[in-house]
Amino acid sequence: MTERPLILISNDDGYSAKGIRVLMNVLTEFGDVVVVAPHTGRSGKGCAITSENPVKYWQVKEAPGLQVYACTGTPVDCVKLAFHSILKRRPALVVGGINHGDNSAVNAHYSGTMGIVFEGCMKEIPSIAFSLCSHDADADFMPAVPYIRNMVSEVLQRGLPVGSCLNVNFPNSPSYAGVKVCRQANGQWVNEWGAHEHPNGGVWYWLTGSFNCKDTAADADRVALDNNYVTITPTRIDVTDYSLLDSMKGWNIDSLVIE
Amino acid sequence: MTERPLILISNDDGYSAKGIRVLMNVLTEFGDVVVVAPHTGRSGKGCAITSENPVKYWQVKEAPGLQVYACTGTPVDCVKLAFHSILKRRPALVVGGINHGDNSAVNAHYSGTMGIVFEGCMKEIPSIAFSLCSHDADADFMPAVPYIRNMVSEVLQRGLPVGSCLNVNFPNSPSYAGVKVCRQANGQWVNEWGAHEHPNGGVWYWLTGSFNCKDTAADADRVALDNNYVTITPTRIDVTDYSLLDSMKGWNIDSLVIE
Repeated sequence: MTERPLILISNDDGYSAKGIRVLMNVLTEFGDVVVVAPHTGRSGKGCAITSENPVKYWQVKEAPGLQVYACTGTPVDCVKLAFHSILKRRPALVVGGINHGDNSAVNAHYSGTMGIVFEGCMKEIPSIAFSLCSHDADADFMPAVPYIRNMVSEVLQRGLPVGSCLNVNFPNSPSYAGVKVCRQANGQWVNEWGAHEHPNGGVWYWLTGSFNCKDTAADADRVALDNNYVTITPTRIDVTDYSLLDSMKGWNIDSLVIE
Repeated sequence: MTERPLILISNDDGYSAKGIRVLMNVLTEFGDVVVVAPHTGRSGKGCAITSENPVKYWQVKEAPGLQVYACTGTPVDCVKLAFHSILKRRPALVVGGINHGDNSAVNAHYSGTMGIVFEGCMKEIPSIAFSLCSHDADADFMPAVPYIRNMVSEVLQRGLPVGSCLNVNFPNSPSYAGVKVCRQANGQWVNEWGAHEHPNGGVWYWLTGSFNCKDTAADADRVALDNNYVTITPTRIDVTDYSLLDSMKGWNIDSLVIE
């Protein structure tokens, strides 16, 4: 009998969040699942690693085909610790989510869910992030489930190119207009801070803001989400700007070596 | 008289680190400098933002052409707060560093120094990260100074394409073989954790490891650094994998819309 695929799941909302519990239920259909996720919410941690403190993990659940561990580290720490100390064999898939909140456009850089997937990708494992455009702790993830099944099945069969991963976002909607393969939308966050007086004096700033989407193209992920499409943004860990690389060879840089 | 350019500096080693003090000295030659940097070391924070606590900042130094602020947030928070509350006009340049440690290859994803520069780039300001391949708190940054002057001068004159920024790394060496415009090297961190018994019981893990460079090409940044070159890796905030985007249109994805 063929061994069932091993699937590693993590998230940035904590191991007990609703979104990751939905993902555990779906992915145990496909293989043996190991969850290593933060013990509490660690949103907005991007690819952060914990370099100045030690971290630890402990098991919180064991069931047939499912082991769940909580970890004090960042989402990326969870993946690194899983590979180092927890997983007994190489996983077939690393999955982040289902995130409570949109990870389209530049949010990919701030997202701990995408941090997980960048890390899985660095370890040369096909990796997929799933996110729902709702921060509600009790959001309805059910409309996303058949799409997750379909995409996981495709990636388990086809794999992904080394260095590439998928950033999948779902509109907060009971049904969708369809699925689009998209590029990262242009735009930026504005009005990012709320100032609040501390009861004992001094001003503290809470991160807030709104996203100013500068893109109008139908294949930009943020735009497609607004049009009620499920978006798949193929993503790479090589952030080199090859076009600028070529043009910089004409710059006036001392000691520049051109080969 | 023309107004001097405004330059925003941040780092992830804290406002009092040696590397950022060198950068302040150099960049005040070019314009008015505002520093907004973490009050203590925040290495490895990548593009992390602080979403679950408020942050604050305070001024630690004021001199002609130089204002220095400390901030309790991440490197990216520092840039966001600077734009929101501190800078009186749009800067001509956002600069991260000089980092104590290598930010070549995949380190770009974990680096708070690169987080600063991604953030500056999202705000459509030409942005440069400078890093030295030494974690020594008293490292010798002097050999890098003439190269920093040259690159800052070029970028102030030429600008950078919107969405693109520069990741510059210096070998830990008293002199260099030259400067190379590079791409991000392939490779990954291995042996990433050290396990330690806590005095009161239980195992804690400290992040450590070594970088396994899989690249041998002379224009890969990590390889060029090993060959004693200063490396400039042009970097983009659009992480879309356009090649995979095209090939995914042939996948068996339910409800896939191809336009």
